[in-house]
Amino acid sequence: MKKFTFSALALGLCLTTFAQEPVNSAAVQKIRAEGLDKSKAYDIAYQITDVAGPRLSNSPGLKRAQDWAVKYFNEMGLKNVHLEAWGDFGKGWQVDKYYAATTKPFYRPIIASPKAWTPGTNGPIKSEVILIKADTITDLAKYKGKLKGKIVMIESALVQPLKNSYKADAVRYTDEELAKMAEATPPVAGGAPGNRQGGGQGGNQRAMMMRMMGMRAAIDSVLLAEGIGLKLTYARGSHGTFFTSNGASYKLDAKPVNPELEVSSEDYLHILRLLRGGEKVEIEADVKTSFYDKDPKGYNVIGEIPGTDPKLKEEIVMLGGHYDSWHSGTGATDNAAGSAVMIEAMRILKAIDFKPKRTIRIALWSSEEQGLFGSRGYVKSHFADPADMKPKPEHEKLSAYYNLDNGTGTIRGVYLQGNAAVKDIFQSWLTPFADLGAKTITISNTGGTDHQAYDGVGLPGFQFIQDPMDYNTRTHHSNMDTFDRLDIEDLKKSATIIASFVYHTSERAEKLPRKEMPKPQAPRM
Amino acid sequence: MKKFTFSALALGLCLTTFAQEPVNSAAVQKIRAEGLDKSKAYDIAYQITDVAGPRLSNSPGLKRAQDWAVKYFNEMGLKNVHLEAWGDFGKGWQVDKYYAATTKPFYRPIIASPKAWTPGTNGPIKSEVILIKADTITDLAKYKGKLKGKIVMIESALVQPLKNSYKADAVRYTDEELAKMAEATPPVAGGAPGNRQGGGQGGNQRAMMMRMMGMRAAIDSVLLAEGIGLKLTYARGSHGTFFTSNGASYKLDAKPVNPELEVSSEDYLHILRLLRGGEKVEIEADVKTSFYDKDPKGYNVIGEIPGTDPKLKEEIVMLGGHYDSWHSGTGATDNAAGSAVMIEAMRILKAIDFKPKRTIRIALWSSEEQGLFGSRGYVKSHFADPADMKPKPEHEKLSAYYNLDNGTGTIRGVYLQGNAAVKDIFQSWLTPFADLGAKTITISNTGGTDHQAYDGVGLPGFQFIQDPMDYNTRTHHSNMDTFDRLDIEDLKKSATIIASFVYHTSERAEKLPRKEMPKPQAPRM
Repeated sequence: MKKFTFSALALGLCLTTFAQEPVNSAAVQKIRAEGLDKSKAYDIAYQITDVAGPRLSNSPGLKRAQDWAVKYFNEMGLKNVHLEAWGDFGKGWQVDKYYAATTKPFYRPIIASPKAWTPGTNGPIKSEVILIKADTITDLAKYKGKLKGKIVMIESALVQPLKNSYKADAVRYTDEELAKMAEATPPVAGGAPGNRQGGGQGGNQRAMMMRMMGMRAAIDSVLLAEGIGLKLTYARGSHGTFFTSNGASYKLDAKPVNPELEVSSEDYLHILRLLRGGEKVEIEADVKTSFYDKDPKGYNVIGEIPGTDPKLKEEIVMLGGHYDSWHSGTGATDNAAGSAVMIEAMRILKAIDFKPKRTIRIALWSSEEQGLFGSRGYVKSHFADPADMKPKPEHEKLSAYYNLDNGTGTIRGVYLQGNAAVKDIFQSWLTPFADLGAKTITISNTGGTDHQAYDGVGLPGFQFIQDPMDYNTRTHHSNMDTFDRLDIEDLKKSATIIASFVYHTSERAEKLPRKEMPKPQAPRM
Repeated sequence: MKKFTFSALALGLCLTTFAQEPVNSAAVQKIRAEGLDKSKAYDIAYQITDVAGPRLSNSPGLKRAQDWAVKYFNEMGLKNVHLEAWGDFGKGWQVDKYYAATTKPFYRPIIASPKAWTPGTNGPIKSEVILIKADTITDLAKYKGKLKGKIVMIESALVQPLKNSYKADAVRYTDEELAKMAEATPPVAGGAPGNRQGGGQGGNQRAMMMRMMGMRAAIDSVLLAEGIGLKLTYARGSHGTFFTSNGASYKLDAKPVNPELEVSSEDYLHILRLLRGGEKVEIEADVKTSFYDKDPKGYNVIGEIPGTDPKLKEEIVMLGGHYDSWHSGTGATDNAAGSAVMIEAMRILKAIDFKPKRTIRIALWSSEEQGLFGSRGYVKSHFADPADMKPKPEHEKLSAYYNLDNGTGTIRGVYLQGNAAVKDIFQSWLTPFADLGAKTITISNTGGTDHQAYDGVGLPGFQFIQDPMDYNTRTHHSNMDTFDRLDIEDLKKSATIIASFVYHTSERAEKLPRKEMPKPQAPRM
């Protein structure tokens, strides 16, 4: 014990001068040894991606992955393992067959995917491609009676030629960038919850977008009434990578839509240039999709390491990430990565035979991609409804929720979400991981994922700073978000750091300090 | 005339101190105005790629592109336009249908292509995937009678996980890199003709490769005898980009081979990880390819602007590039780019109504990808056979051959192929294009393309230095070598520079100086 006290002090003196928050160096060493040298991150990520496949909300792929997680949680000795419904979602959906190729002016297979929740083609079709040119509803009249069974594209000035990129796809944060994040000023209370990246749109742009969306909806109605065979839509991306989205609602009572493919930029632009150039283009396609509406409820996967301290075991430390994905890849960086890291963190804590004071609970959320539904539903039923902000009994028992959902990049630090009172605590807890590159604390918010559900009801919910890697250029919602994109060494480091954070949160004398409870919010749409 | 002399002198004094070789500034201005401001490079490249499609040797796509070139040459007023046979090639081939998808453990369409000159699957097939593990011929015995109709992969330690790239796909030469090229020492006479990029392999590596290739051939024989349904092979590349090659000989008497797909790395590695992990993998596929052996001859497209000087019109300046491509893209950078630049250079010279002293002749070669066959055949029949090095009558009439075949990147200078006597000439001719970034002369060789056919028989044959762009990372022989990869501004600049080089070569008092005639070479296989 004396030795431990000494080395912890030495470490503390060495690396920080302000940290009062204790760090259990012996525990950290055990966690590092297990997490960095005996990692199962590869196997876990492999099961979630390569074996389970795409995990669109309520799809068979998500169910496979959830069933595997339940089995794995039980195998590793977690307690209270279960699928917990968070509310009604709607329909599941998956691709059963995708085939499309340009057959005129020459044969070329098309890299594309059906948009999520769109119907198939009802068997093989073959048709010339019609380029719809319509700036106003009246422009559409000329297509009446001419589109039955046809494959169509819609002319748009927004579709631009590709440009060469002279920048690397994958990047890590530089010391300068991290220093800038560390110097950020506190976010305005009640302000924006933080964006992942990029900014909003100006008023003029928004108005233009609204007009265009209105026109698009009008065109889609006409296409549906005419009974087109297939609609081709431009998908962002390049070199065979394309980014996907949904083409219809997942709701049980969703209105019918056109069969629609999101087409990789090279193939889309090829067809578009030919049509603009007056060439005939013919395409053959065969698309089959299935819907799943037997159980419209959405589920999260839950598991626990029960607390052992008589006074603290009713208190909870949570960690999690969303488990659902988009459909055209296998959701490796979004978010098998975060899920695998959190599962691995639990495994590390079990492997070192940790008996925590507080209960440690993992949650693998679903339907994050449709609006953080899994975490919001869970928070609403366990902690507080943002509509009234009346804390439920569990609200005061939660110390913290840790989330991971920004790709494969290793943890470089943590966002405080404006909660300045945890700064010194986190700084101490990060200290033993400076050699792994994790040392930055920023007061800033980050948004776009499930810690917001907690933060939104006054609970300490945190997302870590992660190296960006190729998340924005290649993987986030793309067909190329596959196991290949995972940097397993990064996952090991992240799992090790999170296991240690969870360890210390569980053992801490007090729960983590909180921000003020927010005011009730208007219900979300 | 006086004014011209003055401005040429002024330019000469301004930019160079050594150049004695005259530059016709008025002509350069006309060429620049036409090439940079009224370019048809976009339209030409569009026809060769988007409209004609892949242009594998003797394929219907190459024929379409050749027919279009003949038509376009005639329209622009070239003379002596014709398809000229260079010798016997073999069979054409094309893909008529490509479909493949993993159906177990879940559905995922596979990005891949049949290897060139391989047969199809004879209709739709569906099979589990067998991972062949064999280090020796005897290891193969266990598969006897078990592979009929099966889809197979061959285990290999050479297939490695993908790694993130922290470098840009596309690059341009820096001033430092160009300066280094300019300082190169002369290549050894009779030495290697120069490589495009990268180096050779050591003796040990070569021996290992030979052993592996022998084992591969043995495995392929067994697979063929067993009657497999389809063989899957790893294709270099990433993010949906894959690089293709041939899987069989194009010769009329080629031996039968297995149906074989070159599979994008993400899809191949997915299947491989699953098989290595003991999972069942099932694939469905439908591949149809066609062979064309009615006319086994190979053809180049030829066209001329006839010379007008009574003494010089029998002499020739040639320019060209190979027109054939691989099959999975549309051969945009390899080499619609170079072809389009050369065609555009001819168009520029016609557009400014140039009446050259010497005859200017363009050649669009075929079968470069199989071994510079088109240019070698042409050189052998017109100039000299490398086997005896006896000059034919045309040999002494050729002033120079200019080639372009290293992608879309703009011209930054020229390789002298060790011909030091042309250095000052080319330096003068480049001077008016310093503002376009073209100013580097290197004494070095560059290889891998059709100027070598000329250089090999002692004729001045030159390839230009071009910005590398994403030629090696994304486009060279890949499915993503499409029109999108072309930088049209770069093509404009290159065409302008080459038109001026051709102009000055045609008008020059003397033919370009030559190197010594090489010694006869052993015939190529």
